[in-house]
Amino acid sequence: MDRRSFITKAAVGGAAASALAAPALAQSAPKVTWRLASSFPKSLDTIFGGAEVLSKMLSEATDGNFQIQVFSAGELVPGLQAADAVTEGTVECCHTVGYYYWGKDPTFALAAAVPFSLSARGINAWHYHGGGIDLYNEFLSQHNIVAFPGGNTGVQMGGWFRREINTVADMQGLKMRVGGFAGKVMERLGVVPQQIAGGDIYPALEKGTIDATEWVGPYDDEKLGFFKVAPYYYYPGWWEGGPTVHFMFNKSAYEGLTPTYQSLLRTACHAADANMLQLYDWKNPTAIKSLVAQGTQLRPFSPEILQACFEAANEVYAEMEASNPAFKKIWDSIKAFRSEHYTWAQIAEYNYDTFMMVQQNAGKL
Amino acid sequence: MDRRSFITKAAVGGAAASALAAPALAQSAPKVTWRLASSFPKSLDTIFGGAEVLSKMLSEATDGNFQIQVFSAGELVPGLQAADAVTEGTVECCHTVGYYYWGKDPTFALAAAVPFSLSARGINAWHYHGGGIDLYNEFLSQHNIVAFPGGNTGVQMGGWFRREINTVADMQGLKMRVGGFAGKVMERLGVVPQQIAGGDIYPALEKGTIDATEWVGPYDDEKLGFFKVAPYYYYPGWWEGGPTVHFMFNKSAYEGLTPTYQSLLRTACHAADANMLQLYDWKNPTAIKSLVAQGTQLRPFSPEILQACFEAANEVYAEMEASNPAFKKIWDSIKAFRSEHYTWAQIAEYNYDTFMMVQQNAGKL
Repeated sequence: MDRRSFITKAAVGGAAASALAAPALAQSAPKVTWRLASSFPKSLDTIFGGAEVLSKMLSEATDGNFQIQVFSAGELVPGLQAADAVTEGTVECCHTVGYYYWGKDPTFALAAAVPFSLSARGINAWHYHGGGIDLYNEFLSQHNIVAFPGGNTGVQMGGWFRREINTVADMQGLKMRVGGFAGKVMERLGVVPQQIAGGDIYPALEKGTIDATEWVGPYDDEKLGFFKVAPYYYYPGWWEGGPTVHFMFNKSAYEGLTPTYQSLLRTACHAADANMLQLYDWKNPTAIKSLVAQGTQLRPFSPEILQACFEAANEVYAEMEASNPAFKKIWDSIKAFRSEHYTWAQIAEYNYDTFMMVQQNAGKL
Repeated sequence: MDRRSFITKAAVGGAAASALAAPALAQSAPKVTWRLASSFPKSLDTIFGGAEVLSKMLSEATDGNFQIQVFSAGELVPGLQAADAVTEGTVECCHTVGYYYWGKDPTFALAAAVPFSLSARGINAWHYHGGGIDLYNEFLSQHNIVAFPGGNTGVQMGGWFRREINTVADMQGLKMRVGGFAGKVMERLGVVPQQIAGGDIYPALEKGTIDATEWVGPYDDEKLGFFKVAPYYYYPGWWEGGPTVHFMFNKSAYEGLTPTYQSLLRTACHAADANMLQLYDWKNPTAIKSLVAQGTQLRPFSPEILQACFEAANEVYAEMEASNPAFKKIWDSIKAFRSEHYTWAQIAEYNYDTFMMVQQNAGKL
């Protein structure tokens, strides 16, 4: 035992460990109370809950001195304007998805989710170790925002359809509640994107005012009962392979924090980010079984449709890259890693999962 | 604006946010200095580095008052006895893998990695939301240990072989450096497991004293140069589908912490846990390309071998469940979720990744 005398079991254990350490008064832990505008309703408990997880972690780690009050969509500001409120300083932070602001600049969407980007494991490797966080914050600084990943759903589903679609021809004139990038891509294949508030989707599907809608995945979708009026549940949601929800902070407010609080905030965001994906990965399996038991008809998008969507997406990307240097810079970074990721991912991980799925389907798990 | 007067941009930003908050002296942040024994050499920088990530997060979030000093394998205690040192109170904590202690009780291995268990996404869902952490700590309490997940490598590779193996017959008499559970399973297929220290593997392969070795995955394996003496790199490592490295704490020391430090420790462990997988997911793609460029021959284990290993593993499980109630309790919990996980995982996630891999192989990413 080199540098410390042998610590008897008792000495290490119990209050002794703390008593041994001379009580030191920490540098003052300033009372900070921030307001967070969520883009999500409380009903989306897993996504909305991500901000509450962050708030709890920060409060518990600072004896309640660092407080983030969480407000659901519409309580302070409209859900889809949460980031704008952070930019303007109406609130110190928000929990939102970058693609809600792609109308302002499509670059907002890239670190969130865009068609045929990276899945959750890939995008997180890029965020945390591929320079993704810094690249996105470089873009966001002009909007007075500092952002950190704050959750992921994993690959989302492709949505609920009143009728089956097998070919690109079947997509002609299809009225689908789908927005942003995906809507722009689907438009090229003849789909007619519809903007409908969440609460109005079910009646629109029921009446046939729309033919289809995308939403999230089994756990969240089951609550809205779409399977009763649009039983065909397509996958994968190729426009949300690993959608990242972000915690966005007013840049000045973030920079006004002590270094201690800044570091704690980054650590807590990282933990809350991982936690949301883990919670979806726990909840979705039960929900998909329940949906199928209630009559949901699972359907994969056909190779023809997926390939057509992929080609159309690449056309949209080419146009954006040509006209938006900030977009090109981040998209080039993601694309470079996407290629490497999908080379390695098909070796150990894919073969292991494939074998395990074969056993599951053979009733051997 | 309901509960707060409109905060002008200046008031929210800059030091104003902190100055506004009356400086409050936090409940004393006691000085705590712990020693962590890692089971890993510094050369395994990604795995060993996980403890340094935790230490940094804790120190930064407490103005340096909560310190964890990280010691590599052998500095304080032998790497494979790190958990024993925590049980005895020689050190307050360690960073280790439960299967190192399966000789004491195979139950140690279950929350770490056992053959044909869950991959990283699945085991993390089980840990954090399937009761896994509590179940494992219920078992560990008899060893005076509280543990939290502290990293994952993702599916590991199946190891380096001097010759190709295609059938179970090819495994007869194969001398392979492989331990624990995997060794016990492979023994049933005629493999002769060898216990060799990390530094002695290369010369043993070179001389042919052994025919094969498992290690980790591309990033870690490339450093040891096994491809020069055993070029056939098999996958998947079916005994490590999502191996969890754990931070293990002396129970009394953990319970002696303030609630504030306990919560901060859990948050930092959660972040450090996610970070290791993200770092491997960033590093492995580059390493596999480099290994192949240097002559490594990638080989999938044949369906015959995988199926035989799966059946042999199930025999071992049946024996352990019959004789070890603690083992059965945890393994039943994992198995129940494994079945659900591999039902859901083959829908959106698998189809998305499959499509993307096809595009990658067609040179379209």
